[in-house]
Parts: sequence; structure tokens; C-alpha cells
Amino acid sequence: MTGKCACFLAKMMYNNPQKIKHPVFFKKNNPTTPIRAAMLYYLVSLVPDFEKTPLRLFNYFTFRAAAALVTATLLGILLGPLTVRLLKKAVAPPRLEGIVDEKFVDHSKDRTPSMGGLLVVASIILATLLWGDLTNRLLLLFLCTLAAFSAIGFIDDFTKIRSKKDGVSAKYKLVCQFAVSLMAILIYSHLTPEIAKTFCQLYVPFVKEPVWTMPYPVAVAFAVFVLVGTSNAVNLTDGKDGLATGCTIWCMMTYALIAYLCTNSIFASHLDLPFIRNGAEIVVFAAAIIGACVGFLWHNCKPASMFMGDTGSLALGGIIGFISILVNQELLLILVGGVFVMEIASVMIQVPVFRLTGKRVFKCTPIHHHFEQLGWTETQIVTRFWILAGLFALAGAATMKLR
Amino acid sequence: MTGKCACFLAKMMYNNPQKIKHPVFFKKNNPTTPIRAAMLYYLVSLVPDFEKTPLRLFNYFTFRAAAALVTATLLGILLGPLTVRLLKKAVAPPRLEGIVDEKFVDHSKDRTPSMGGLLVVASIILATLLWGDLTNRLLLLFLCTLAAFSAIGFIDDFTKIRSKKDGVSAKYKLVCQFAVSLMAILIYSHLTPEIAKTFCQLYVPFVKEPVWTMPYPVAVAFAVFVLVGTSNAVNLTDGKDGLATGCTIWCMMTYALIAYLCTNSIFASHLDLPFIRNGAEIVVFAAAIIGACVGFLWHNCKPASMFMGDTGSLALGGIIGFISILVNQELLLILVGGVFVMEIASVMIQVPVFRLTGKRVFKCTPIHHHFEQLGWTETQIVTRFWILAGLFALAGAATMKLR
Repeated sequence: MTGKCACFLAKMMYNNPQKIKHPVFFKKNNPTTPIRAAMLYYLVSLVPDFEKTPLRLFNYFTFRAAAALVTATLLGILLGPLTVRLLKKAVAPPRLEGIVDEKFVDHSKDRTPSMGGLLVVASIILATLLWGDLTNRLLLLFLCTLAAFSAIGFIDDFTKIRSKKDGVSAKYKLVCQFAVSLMAILIYSHLTPEIAKTFCQLYVPFVKEPVWTMPYPVAVAFAVFVLVGTSNAVNLTDGKDGLATGCTIWCMMTYALIAYLCTNSIFASHLDLPFIRNGAEIVVFAAAIIGACVGFLWHNCKPASMFMGDTGSLALGGIIGFISILVNQELLLILVGGVFVMEIASVMIQVPVFRLTGKRVFKCTPIHHHFEQLGWTETQIVTRFWILAGLFALAGAATMKLR
Repeated sequence: MTGKCACFLAKMMYNNPQKIKHPVFFKKNNPTTPIRAAMLYYLVSLVPDFEKTPLRLFNYFTFRAAAALVTATLLGILLGPLTVRLLKKAVAPPRLEGIVDEKFVDHSKDRTPSMGGLLVVASIILATLLWGDLTNRLLLLFLCTLAAFSAIGFIDDFTKIRSKKDGVSAKYKLVCQFAVSLMAILIYSHLTPEIAKTFCQLYVPFVKEPVWTMPYPVAVAFAVFVLVGTSNAVNLTDGKDGLATGCTIWCMMTYALIAYLCTNSIFASHLDLPFIRNGAEIVVFAAAIIGACVGFLWHNCKPASMFMGDTGSLALGGIIGFISILVNQELLLILVGGVFVMEIASVMIQVPVFRLTGKRVFKCTPIHHHFEQLGWTETQIVTRFWILAGLFALAGAATMKLR
């Protein structure tokens, strides 16, 4: 058993999945269909005649996606208290993004541990390892990108705690983000012939056909910009208990739906979406992300037992951007991630205007602080931003039909 | 124009919709298909060649459902402040349901107006009048039931304010609920031959075929029990800012999805669901309910500017039950409305056990007070119950596929 597992893991890591010919990877009824090698699926396939038992549900990726969602949710809820205890030793100072007046800093939050993103990322990875097809290279790339963005955030969070200062310099962080994004995009664009073909095509909401076939360098630059942009947008949004977590859930629900539609050849052709081969695993992955965020939200709602920190927000943001690139709906992000756009736009307007004229467009940025100063309570800000995120997500999903 | 409208309204109110033969009700291209007579749709149909403009979207009930949702949301958000001002004159004492210790009553809420349900019901009715097909008798029946349940709640809320006491007696309220439910169900079961056929069939989750064809009186009693039960369950849940509103949104999203699937003959036959003719309008109606709740939640999140009161909770609960009857998924309510079931079950366990033994199973009921005493903040209770409601809704939706 151990030998078989080791062999399986070795093949999984180093081989092209299309070439694996180990007999256990083939269904008994139809020897030409490789079994999807999810960890649990692999174990299930050892059960004699599993196709005749309720275990045949493993054949449906929608079932695996739902299971990944529930698994990640439970992991988040159950491992939360333990995570909080471990992180308590590593308390970060409150983050001061944008232009913040000292009087608006809530010192009651000084003792709340940051880096809760570790729980989010761990839940996502565990749930995906259990329910995803680990021979799918697209999934492995997404998992690695998630881990890399999370690592950048972790270094920043950790430095903040150690030095009791602002963490690593913003410039250094940005360089790391660009480096990781560039590497991820370069690998992604050569992953399969289908992706190489659609990678340079620019789709616009409401239009069926791609409006422009970008030159390869432009396409890479654009994709890197999307990754870095979403990553920082979610990071800026993460300033109120549960705000970024809830908005990420809505945004990811829409993209999980779009990925599901793109993966199904019938829906894809009916809605004129580019068909994505092997995209099913990204639906499982997206479901795990939704679940992990829901589980984390259990502990992140006011008063939060922990914050996700850069560890979580950079990773979640980057992956949102990456999935939008996969489904060729990068520009739709402006609508689906409307709350994130509001947050980053408020800073991008405020800072230059303040430096040039000395005047403030908003009372305080990121924009959730503006509403705080208008007298909204934290719960009101968070609930209302969730409502906006939900409406943006709905509008984004509706554009799939309006083409 | 005025004459035409009057004629239209007259026919709408008094005629069997199948028999309306006014020329404006027929599409120009295909004179045998009656135009759906939504108020806005009627106006749109006056535009020459509207089929060739983007206005042709009105032909899709999914578009009208989305529009109803957005309209109801905006109505809720925009009319909120005005409603609060009007209701401020009519402040209700805090409701004390179940066994509540005086020390757990939050007196800061004494000045928050109740009867915000008027805004919810008004948003639903306005959005449905604008976007629904008012010649559909099923829709008219649902609208009237909504209004009737709301009226019972209003009388109760109003009496509470006037007499500064507990409102009308629980027995009187229950009798009214039974009377309204019975009338609604008697009309419903004779509305169309299809409904008459499926009304007595009892479906169970996970099973494709109906498990039992009930005798007509049993079916009526069962349906009345469902309506009264859901109505009171939502009423009991309405004890924390935003709790009942949020849980209703999730529950209604699942039933709107099921109604959509039942309405589409392809999906219905694929998933072995009973096909519902003319059910499309109930999807529009359900979307309006979701939107109205979202808009209301904007003002109902902590600290709430108003509570929905019995005016809202009885009406929303009754309609949830009614839609479950329409789609023949009454028993699924136990799963989809899991939070409501938790709330009502906690009271149904606590009260008799306390009367018999003098001991308390829960620290306090309805169950959200139990968690309050465990030290959860109001926002934590509400957010976590929303998460549970979301998971229950997802599980309920998943059962559609697992049959």
C-alpha cells in the first residue's frame, strides 16, 4: 500500500498526467478513461465495484466541488480556535493603509492575531488535496500560485510582528508580487495548446467574440497587471472584520459559476464561452476557496478572533485574478469585484489628489473608512458592502446571458 | 391611452386570463402567443417593433426576475429612511418570545420602530406589479396570501404599540393564520387541473417518484400546517438584527432555483421534477422577495433602524411555505429552512420540558438567545446563523441532483 502510494505520488508529481499508464488509473468498465486521481478518489477506486455503490458519485466533479466546499468550511470552523491560540503569540499591530487619522484606529483590535490567512490557505490546500484531481497540471499551477502569494503576505505579516513596524517595504512587496505573477503567467500560457490559443484573446463583457488578439508580450503584461491588481485590491479591502472574506465569497461564487459553464461543452457553446478542457478541477478549487472563506468568516465576524492579514488577502486576491484570466473574463472583474474596485479606486484617487492639492476627496481611504466617519457602525459597513458585493456578483453572472 | 389602460386593468382583474382576446395582448409576429401582461411589459409592447430593440429582453422571465430583484432591492434601500421616519411615531416594545430573562432584554432597542415589514411587503408588491405577469392567477393568489399574512402581523404589531402590551392573544393570531392558510390552500388546490393533480402527491427528498398520494382532506391539512408552521418559525427567528432577513434570503434563493427548474420543461424532466406550467411568474415573485429582503437588510443590520416585526416575518414565512407547496418540496423545508427549524424546535422542546420538569434544555429560547448567553455577540450570532442558513440552502439545492 505504501509503495503503491509512493509510486502514485511520484508519478503525480513528475509525469505528464496524460501519459500515466498505471492500471489503477483506469476504470474497469472502460479502460481508455483514466480515473481522476483525487486522493480520496484514488482510495475509493480500490473498493471492488465502487461504480455500483453510492461511491460512484465521485465520478461527478460537481459532487467533488460540493464536498470540497463543505470540507474546507468544516476545516475552517473546527481548526479556528487552535489557529487563534497558535497565532496569539504572534500579534501584529493594526494595519494603517491609505491615509488614516490616528483617532480612527481601533486600539481594541491591537491584540487580535493577524496571519489567519494561514488557516484559509491550509483549508483550501487540504480540501483540494482530498477532492481535486492532482494529476491536473492546471490545478497544481493554481495551488502553487496560491502558496506563493500567501508566502509573500506571510513574510510581510511576520516582519510586521517582529520589527513592530510597517513590515517589508511596499516596493519590495510589489517586486515579489510581480515576480510571482510573471512566473505563474509564463507557465500558464504554455500549459496546453488550448490555453496558448486563447491566452492572447481579449474578451469584453456583452460581446461574444474576442475583440482583440493581443501580441504575446502585451497579453503577459496585461495578465500580470490583473494578478497584481486584484491581489492588492483584496489586501486594501481587508480592513474591517469579515469585509474582505465576505466579498471574496461573492466574487468567487460568480467565477466558480463561470468556470463551471466554461467547463461544460454544452453550456459553453450555448453561451458562446471559450470551452476550457480540464477546467473542472478549477471549479473544485474555487469551491474549496469559497468553503475556506466561509469557515474563516465564522471566526472573522465581529469581534474577529483573527484577521486574515496579507497572508490571506494577497493569496485570495491573486487567485481571483488568475481564475478570471483562465475563463477569459478579466474585464468582468471590474463588475464582479466591484467592492474591491471601489476600495482600490478610492486610494488611487485620494493619494495623488491629496499630494497635489492637499485636499481630500474622501474623508478617509480605503473607502470603508469614509463610511465609518459618516457614522456607520462596523457591522453596517460590512453588511452593506456584502450586499453590494452580492449585487455586483449577480450582475456579473447575468452578463453571461446578455451577450 | 387611459382608456386602454383601464380596459386592460378591468380585464386583468375580472377575466380568466386564458380568455383575454384584446389585440394588444398578442405578439405581432405570432398572434397565438399572448403577451405576458406585466405592467412594464405592457408599456414596452406599445413601442413599435420592440422585438427588434434591446427591449425584447422583456420576453425572458429570467430578465424580469433579475429586474424585479434589483427593483425591490433599490425600493428597500431608498424608501428605508422615509419608512423609519414614519414608523418612529409607532414604536413597539421589544418582543419577548419563549422564556426570556429580563437581564437579557436589550433596552437600547426599545426605541427602534417595529413594523418595518410594511416596507418589505410594499417592495415585493411594487416590484411584482412592475415586472410580473398580472394575468397569472397563481401570482395573484400568492400576492393576496402575502398581503393577508402581513395584515395579521400588522394587527398584532399595531395592538402591541397601542396597548403597550403583548399584542393580540396568541390564540387569536393562530386562528387567523389557520383561516388565511386554509382559504389560500382551498383556492390553490383548485386553481388549475395540473395543480389539482399534483396537490395530493407527497414527495420526499432523494426520491424521484411521489411516495404517497394523500386523500384530499389530509393534503389540505398538511399544506395548512406547512403554511402556519413556516410563518411562526420565521416569526420566532426574528429576534436579532438581520437574522430572519438574512436566513429568509438564503431559503428563498433555494426555492427560487427549484421553482426555476420546475418551470423549465427540459430541466424538470432531466431532474425528474414535477413540471409547473405558468410557474415562471412565481420565480419573478420569489426574486422580488429576495430583493426586498436584501434592501431591508440594508437598514436592518446592526444597529437596526427598524425591525420587520410580525408584519414582515409572518408574511415571509407563510410565502416560503407556500412556494414549497407549489414545487412539491414541503419536506425539503426541514433542510433548506434549517435555521428556522432549529429556532422553532428549540422552543417546542424547551417549553414542555420546562413545564414538566422545571429544567431548561437550552439556557434560553429561541435558540439564538442560548448562544447569546454563551457569550457570542449579536453580530457573531447573526453571521454564524447566516453561514448555517447558506450551507442548509446549498444542501437543499444539492438534493435536486441527488435523486
